Amino acid sequence: MAQKRLGRQTVKLENPPAIIGCSSTAGKKESEGPLGDGFDYVSTDSYWGEDSWEKAESGMQKQALELAVTKANTAAKNVDYIFGGDLLNQCIGSVFGLAETNIPFYGIYGACSTMAEGLGLAAMMIDGGFADITAAVTSSHFCTAERQFRFPLEYGGQSAPSSQWTVTGSGAVILSSHSDKGPYITHVTTGKIVDYGITDAANMGAAMAPSAYDTLSSHFKESGFQPTDYDLIVTGDLGSIGRSIVLDFFKEDNIDLSPNYNDCGLIIFSKDQEGINSGGSGCGCSAIVLTAHILKEMSEGKWNRVLFAGTGALMSTTSSQQGSSIPGICHAVTISNTK
Amino acid sequence: MAQKRLGRQTVKLENPPAIIGCSSTAGKKESEGPLGDGFDYVSTDSYWGEDSWEKAESGMQKQALELAVTKANTAAKNVDYIFGGDLLNQCIGSVFGLAETNIPFYGIYGACSTMAEGLGLAAMMIDGGFADITAAVTSSHFCTAERQFRFPLEYGGQSAPSSQWTVTGSGAVILSSHSDKGPYITHVTTGKIVDYGITDAANMGAAMAPSAYDTLSSHFKESGFQPTDYDLIVTGDLGSIGRSIVLDFFKEDNIDLSPNYNDCGLIIFSKDQEGINSGGSGCGCSAIVLTAHILKEMSEGKWNRVLFAGTGALMSTTSSQQGSSIPGICHAVTISNTK
Repeated sequence: MAQKRLGRQTVKLENPPAIIGCSSTAGKKESEGPLGDGFDYVSTDSYWGEDSWEKAESGMQKQALELAVTKANTAAKNVDYIFGGDLLNQCIGSVFGLAETNIPFYGIYGACSTMAEGLGLAAMMIDGGFADITAAVTSSHFCTAERQFRFPLEYGGQSAPSSQWTVTGSGAVILSSHSDKGPYITHVTTGKIVDYGITDAANMGAAMAPSAYDTLSSHFKESGFQPTDYDLIVTGDLGSIGRSIVLDFFKEDNIDLSPNYNDCGLIIFSKDQEGINSGGSGCGCSAIVLTAHILKEMSEGKWNRVLFAGTGALMSTTSSQQGSSIPGICHAVTISNTK
Repeated sequence: MAQKRLGRQTVKLENPPAIIGCSSTAGKKESEGPLGDGFDYVSTDSYWGEDSWEKAESGMQKQALELAVTKANTAAKNVDYIFGGDLLNQCIGSVFGLAETNIPFYGIYGACSTMAEGLGLAAMMIDGGFADITAAVTSSHFCTAERQFRFPLEYGGQSAPSSQWTVTGSGAVILSSHSDKGPYITHVTTGKIVDYGITDAANMGAAMAPSAYDTLSSHFKESGFQPTDYDLIVTGDLGSIGRSIVLDFFKEDNIDLSPNYNDCGLIIFSKDQEGINSGGSGCGCSAIVLTAHILKEMSEGKWNRVLFAGTGALMSTTSSQQGSSIPGICHAVTISNTK
């Protein structure tokens, strides 16, 4: 078996890459939530100075990458690969946001698991000897997601109590082979597509929860880590309904995950913010919770080891219109202050 | 610099993975072209026995993967990672085609460069020590692409002479760390997003040609290979207009690429087939030209070293409607009968 494999889904990196910089850009609603003080840049203009919401989303990614590169004390020309993607059809958020960077680019699609997928691949590119510095970036925008996946905002449609609010935000993370300071990415657990036959597009949390359970339980079996070895286990973005389903799955295995398990969709907004319903969602949600909150708490020593598990709902309006189910996927990485 | 890097975009693999199996599924029009005898499976039913064209496209991917796994004399449970993607919004071709495989899955998006992008990543996962067997798979379908990107087929719209015909087909390739027989993937040159400001969505070849030139010229500078070191340099899918632009670019560098340079969009169809115009396109085009033609010629010793350069047009209907340009990307891998 390949030297770094611990099992079907999990690898242990030989020389764990360090996170040397990260950034977050966010919208007005996000700035009014509990993480409001932590974002690197907030725009109260949903157009981000552009003439369409899609261009605004690209602008957020461009800015997030530039900020992260600066905070990492490096330059775009030193970034060997960038892994980027988003929810927009054909990933145009990343394409137009990153087109001018001149950085070798791998487009990825993992729906709301994109940051975790990108982090895993970016880390393995370094550990495999292919790169010195890599980046992962993603974004989402409430207005682009609403009109692509649901209804034109002008309709003023009502949302279901089980629905989640797409986060307007972009996060970028820079990894390096050379740093004597963490945090480091030490393990990568790659997700499988898991389909329990859920068809309700207004209940994504339920659709994604089985994939989160699949990846987390595989991680615990293969990595040797117990849930209690983590200061925080965090999925993104299952919301309140999805989180409780994951807890129920683990309860059947006689594991109580509740003490240290949370979800990015529950961290990003307060329950009393208008329209939030079951929590936040979108590629940007787990990305900016990671960069504006989790990595900060880690750098301050509050948490030393975190399991960051991005979850994505793999559907399109076409697949839903054709009555197909909503498969989920969950990619996880171990982020640790020590190698 | 990381040990395997030869330059900004190119890496040389230390233990080049072998291609141990590949497959192609194709539609009726493709079966009537010059490669007609080479496909593993042809369906004259555009629905592939399903009730929608999108489900048909997923069915083609499922079948292509199963065929490739069988021809590689292995089983899905031995495949450590699969890299898959397609042109459909949110990559539902791959999602629903591969959901039942139970193989750890990385969703990628590179438009028509997807097979080359997937091959590069799948090869690096093995060479990096993370996997023993990996797979790359992609597809396209004329009917799903037409109605998503252009007009409902029922309109009977006319196509421009510069337009290309989206191939109905799916290709899968299986790589392994252990094989004493090639062909092998020895080098990977990763593309950058290149934008020359082309906005004509009916002339994708022109939009993608600059990215092909960028990647190919970087490859020759960084890898140490001259164009004449290759028995075949093949892009996919620029069509006749894009190919001539690439030749012009190289002419300015005093390099005549014409003797051994071809394009998958020109190989897949005959000029006299109805509606072909500038050639074939779609993720499936370069994928099945690779698996049904190039790898066969290599196994028969006709060609010993091939530069396979997938090209993608990074746009969506939304970006085109908003007047945005069409950036291109080109990912290349060196496939060689010797390590």
